Amino acid sequence: MSSNDKGLQPPFVKGWPDEERVVMGHGSGGRKMHRLIRDVFLRHFGNPVLNRLGDSAVFGTRGAQRAMSTDSYVVQPLFFPGGDIGKLAVCGTVNDLAVAGARPEFLSAGFIVREGLEMAVLERICRSMARTARRAGVSIVTGDFKVIERGEDEGVYINTTGSGTVRAGVDLGPQRIRAGDALLINGPIGQHEAAIAVARGGYGFKAGVKSDCAPLGGLVARMLRLKGVRMMRDPTRGGLATTLNEIADATGLGFVVDEGLLPVSKTVRGVAELLGFDVMYMANEGKVLTVADLGKAGRLVEAMRADTHGRGARRIGEVVRRPPGVWLRTKLGSLRRMIMLEGEQLPRIC
Amino acid sequence: MSSNDKGLQPPFVKGWPDEERVVMGHGSGGRKMHRLIRDVFLRHFGNPVLNRLGDSAVFGTRGAQRAMSTDSYVVQPLFFPGGDIGKLAVCGTVNDLAVAGARPEFLSAGFIVREGLEMAVLERICRSMARTARRAGVSIVTGDFKVIERGEDEGVYINTTGSGTVRAGVDLGPQRIRAGDALLINGPIGQHEAAIAVARGGYGFKAGVKSDCAPLGGLVARMLRLKGVRMMRDPTRGGLATTLNEIADATGLGFVVDEGLLPVSKTVRGVAELLGFDVMYMANEGKVLTVADLGKAGRLVEAMRADTHGRGARRIGEVVRRPPGVWLRTKLGSLRRMIMLEGEQLPRIC
Repeated sequence: MSSNDKGLQPPFVKGWPDEERVVMGHGSGGRKMHRLIRDVFLRHFGNPVLNRLGDSAVFGTRGAQRAMSTDSYVVQPLFFPGGDIGKLAVCGTVNDLAVAGARPEFLSAGFIVREGLEMAVLERICRSMARTARRAGVSIVTGDFKVIERGEDEGVYINTTGSGTVRAGVDLGPQRIRAGDALLINGPIGQHEAAIAVARGGYGFKAGVKSDCAPLGGLVARMLRLKGVRMMRDPTRGGLATTLNEIADATGLGFVVDEGLLPVSKTVRGVAELLGFDVMYMANEGKVLTVADLGKAGRLVEAMRADTHGRGARRIGEVVRRPPGVWLRTKLGSLRRMIMLEGEQLPRIC
Repeated sequence: MSSNDKGLQPPFVKGWPDEERVVMGHGSGGRKMHRLIRDVFLRHFGNPVLNRLGDSAVFGTRGAQRAMSTDSYVVQPLFFPGGDIGKLAVCGTVNDLAVAGARPEFLSAGFIVREGLEMAVLERICRSMARTARRAGVSIVTGDFKVIERGEDEGVYINTTGSGTVRAGVDLGPQRIRAGDALLINGPIGQHEAAIAVARGGYGFKAGVKSDCAPLGGLVARMLRLKGVRMMRDPTRGGLATTLNEIADATGLGFVVDEGLLPVSKTVRGVAELLGFDVMYMANEGKVLTVADLGKAGRLVEAMRADTHGRGARRIGEVVRRPPGVWLRTKLGSLRRMIMLEGEQLPRIC
């Protein structure tokens, strides 16, 4: 699929040796997607704001800085334990704004829906979006609705784009990270991808695993009131390992996660083993990875634990000068390299 | 398709007598879409900003007011005379901001693409988006890329969401419209829908008609420098008649378009006659409908004509106290009522 049928290289794409068609892996968050972003999107759209490739764009207007973030949601199935496409569409974008240090304020909602969708399903999705938006403290201020022909899937695609004000005095970014910093997480990882994999079925088993899908604006606000946060990211597609690889690429530093400290539920570990997934690469939708000053790490973990979405918060690792890259310190004490995957473990998880 | 197979009314949707599934007409800009917006989206998401249902949401933050607008583009075919989905995705959102009195500044771009799409096609679309964004003076600052399985269409859906600053001192809105005001348009109507209909083919003819797809920020800025503009709208899905009906509903006034003054190219008139379309309902993607103080109408038309996208500008009608609603004064002098259509003339035009 990704090889070149004609044996020719497309002359218009530099650095595109053997891929002339889009494959599922291009949407996975892994290396394929990063190459696509670099070779197509940055090449054509590049500008100082976009080039930073943050979870949100941050730009100055007179007065306060503003953040803007967009995501389209194509998750299958539309409803899954712990959430649905509507809840996900609000949380995903709100969280991208939050981890950029912004207070999420306004959302747009763009629906693309297949002819034949039951109105009751659309209602259920909208009700869930509205409820999640209220919880997250954002208003849906503008929208769009398009209908496409009947087809092979359930057929609801939702884009949300969010806008918010960057909190005064907050300065987050990879350039602030230092060797010796701590890596923190607000709870057990891999739940969203495990829930989707099980809900999609066909594996001959059921598991009591729920997506962690949640709006994290409140939790992030608690953390930013304290000092010591260097950078935050929400490890969605591609999971913790992919997000850490992005930060490692940006800083040239090493990121070591301690397997013994990493919170993973028994159920998620079971699903991962059965399906051959690595939890470090499994998607999350209610997690924030924080790089923090080691001296402030304890208080930041406490602040997270005081929030509904941070009960399982803990320190999971550290930043080192060498070796660069992303590493898992196994329970036996050896270091295992966590490279960025080429493609996906599971498509259409968000 | 829109009837209720089970003979039951869904208990959760008030005012939804006989439609329990989404049909193509729900995406058309006509009455079906307006009912969906009222009964589903406003009911769940309603808030003071959304409830105004403008082309853009306008909200105050400290200092200047900001505008935000979103649209998803699902046009088929992806490339058509005068444009492509990429150009359309930039123009459509930029124009929604412009007619709200805002200076378009930042765009997000969310792609949903089918597996198997040729990379060369994606490149061509991005190149076109980038070129149009440069012309329109906006930066694409954030984006997202999702891949879905192979399917029945060409499979590129693009959401753009735009953000801009409302020009100081500009106050536009239906409440400012008075009987005696003039209706102005910046050129011949119906071109976008005619171009798409012909490009979609299957009609056994070709016509030299191009979409009018264009960014109108510059033209609108020229007009707003003069005084006298009461309100602007871009008559896209559902055309001039639908947009005027929305304004008529909001004001309770009458809107009379003079058939003899309405600019329509011979080719568009020919396409409309062959396909049984009414030009008043045909979609435009480079037109701005302006309601203006009659005393300033002449200077506003001159200002439009000084712009590349306003060469064919003219006054096309007037606002009257009675009769309320939207009317076409035919060349014979009689008044023909232009109601809002139930559904679409042609789906997936934008």
